[in-house]
Amino acid sequence: MTTVPLDLKLLAKQYKDELFNNVLPFWEAHSRDDLYGGYFTCLDRQGNVFDTDKFVWLQGRQIWLFSSLYNNVEKRAEWLDMALHGADFLSKYGHDKEGNWYFSLNREGKPLIQPYNIFSDCFATMAYGQLYKATGNEEHALIAKNTFENILRKKDNPKGKFNKAIAETRPLKGFSLPMILCNLSLEIEHLLSKELVESTVDACITEVMEVFYDEASGLIRENVTPEGCFSNSFDGRLLNPGHAIESMWFIMDLAELKQNQALIEKAVAITLQTLKHGWDEQYGGIFYFMDIKGAPPQQLEWDQKLWWVHVETLISLLKGYLLTQNEECLIWFKKVHDYTWSHFPDPVYGEWFGYLNRQGEVLLPLKGGKWKGCFHVPRALLQCWKTLEKISEME
Amino acid sequence: MTTVPLDLKLLAKQYKDELFNNVLPFWEAHSRDDLYGGYFTCLDRQGNVFDTDKFVWLQGRQIWLFSSLYNNVEKRAEWLDMALHGADFLSKYGHDKEGNWYFSLNREGKPLIQPYNIFSDCFATMAYGQLYKATGNEEHALIAKNTFENILRKKDNPKGKFNKAIAETRPLKGFSLPMILCNLSLEIEHLLSKELVESTVDACITEVMEVFYDEASGLIRENVTPEGCFSNSFDGRLLNPGHAIESMWFIMDLAELKQNQALIEKAVAITLQTLKHGWDEQYGGIFYFMDIKGAPPQQLEWDQKLWWVHVETLISLLKGYLLTQNEECLIWFKKVHDYTWSHFPDPVYGEWFGYLNRQGEVLLPLKGGKWKGCFHVPRALLQCWKTLEKISEME
Repeated sequence: MTTVPLDLKLLAKQYKDELFNNVLPFWEAHSRDDLYGGYFTCLDRQGNVFDTDKFVWLQGRQIWLFSSLYNNVEKRAEWLDMALHGADFLSKYGHDKEGNWYFSLNREGKPLIQPYNIFSDCFATMAYGQLYKATGNEEHALIAKNTFENILRKKDNPKGKFNKAIAETRPLKGFSLPMILCNLSLEIEHLLSKELVESTVDACITEVMEVFYDEASGLIRENVTPEGCFSNSFDGRLLNPGHAIESMWFIMDLAELKQNQALIEKAVAITLQTLKHGWDEQYGGIFYFMDIKGAPPQQLEWDQKLWWVHVETLISLLKGYLLTQNEECLIWFKKVHDYTWSHFPDPVYGEWFGYLNRQGEVLLPLKGGKWKGCFHVPRALLQCWKTLEKISEME
Repeated sequence: MTTVPLDLKLLAKQYKDELFNNVLPFWEAHSRDDLYGGYFTCLDRQGNVFDTDKFVWLQGRQIWLFSSLYNNVEKRAEWLDMALHGADFLSKYGHDKEGNWYFSLNREGKPLIQPYNIFSDCFATMAYGQLYKATGNEEHALIAKNTFENILRKKDNPKGKFNKAIAETRPLKGFSLPMILCNLSLEIEHLLSKELVESTVDACITEVMEVFYDEASGLIRENVTPEGCFSNSFDGRLLNPGHAIESMWFIMDLAELKQNQALIEKAVAITLQTLKHGWDEQYGGIFYFMDIKGAPPQQLEWDQKLWWVHVETLISLLKGYLLTQNEECLIWFKKVHDYTWSHFPDPVYGEWFGYLNRQGEVLLPLKGGKWKGCFHVPRALLQCWKTLEKISEME
């Protein structure tokens, strides 16, 4: 039993209540576009729509979220209906003839930004894979499968003709894709052959835990050379602590399935090391971007405190504790939990703020925009609630 | 004579001293790459090189700056030598076979980022046009002329094949290019036919002062529809106060040549209106980005205080006062001058900080990076010094 003074049952209830009584009702009330289909995500503090563009990442993520609630929490018809409402729109307008997913659409569904961004494909795969579990509709399975194959085909040059970097001069590969493929292979396991799942998962684990992981610092780098070496450049020096920590719970999920305790321990160690490195000792919270050599980062928003970074950290810490009983996970959980709950939830209009400045003040009062939608907060509340219940049963 | 309590002669001396005794020596001491040619611009607080990439915008701008000092201040051999040092490198490595200028190069000069950005071409044109005035070398004239023609050819689709926006859904045109062409046409007037200068200048003045200018708000929009109308989208609602104010001194320069006092008055009115709109009443300083409808902007760095925004504003206010004797220009000049001088210069290691947070604290301690080089600060010091001298002679 832990010596960290936390009432785990009460905490489980806190996360669950926030999900069902605050966050989900906000999106249910404000995000549905009944006229043209799909979801509005640009919602101001009160929930008013301040922009009607539809970003494919966020459309896919909201389909996934409501499908996942339906599959994993309760078979509520209104959740499935919400997921299908988004999927009808996205199937019709989201991709080009080759099955590449656009980055964004206007309210009516006309494409605004070309499919330069492979994460649109990733979130579409997640969405339709999860939706298929709810509907059994083979069309949904087919979209997920075809898109996943497309991702694997494109993965060595994800931006295609929109890639502006000249690889001959400085070849680099990015962390985001292997990271998300860890999660994606589990998400659509039911649609793939056992061999493809295993080979993809094994390759991703190696990439994340050996190639992008830097043993000397104990940190994960955002970009490395094709040989997995350090590149002394802006991209090569870049750290994204939230990214690294989020990927660690993907790895823990995979390691749990594979019953690989050593891998779990390594993922927990990286989580804790990244958190110590990324924590702002002066104002609290986790930095958005850092430079591994301490040079000034290129990203002007480097010192901001973002919602997803903090809620993903809560998941990794709780899963880490559940799987290892490492007390440090709970000590850090309490610290990040206190920061998160005292800064992000909006006590007046509900839901959570997304963007705080370094000092922890609200930088943008929006509840959703181009990047924040109905995804990280509810997914984290669900994951933390369920994990806290498991921990409290174990104690 | 003004009633605003300012000692204009002393101020002129302050700007001149800062240029010659602080800013120029910093760049002369730290930016020259004697091994591979060109300039380092990624300099930390002390002037140490923290990254060796060479950004074509900043290479071109530094060539321009030293050429301009040579042409307009004093024929110092070391200034011309510094300009030629950059130009030798840039002529050799800066462009592809079609004369399109890369965005960035590595230290040795190998291209890193494709020529997707037409402002690389603009700053190359400025550089070689000004350098030609110093050298009389026809090769320099030819580079400037050919690049300028290339810009005019590409101006309707500046990003070429790297453009990710689907124009059929939401056609928009941007303010940056007509804005910079105002300045560029004057810069290389000596290389162009009188007709081309006049037609370019007239077209740009109309674009800036009528098409992008929004009469209802008195503000300049960053993007409008091809018909010059408002687009209710993130891009369409975007304001960049520094951009708008900087362009007003380009317009004043053109209007002075054309002896168009009404145009000068309009440029001064827009300067003052933009400044009132963009000024942060709470912490002082001018915001980086705003939304014309007050919606949350997409740019996470929207509330930061950037060096170039403030020093360009000082130029516009002084030129505005010189040309109109509007007292409001001097009242605002005093306010922006006080903010600028108490926040941006580094009293310990010299030169100026570039990036402050909303509160006015240093966000990044660099003296130069991907976007800040040897350009805005020394150009503004030169412009303010010269303009203050003219004003004080007039009084």
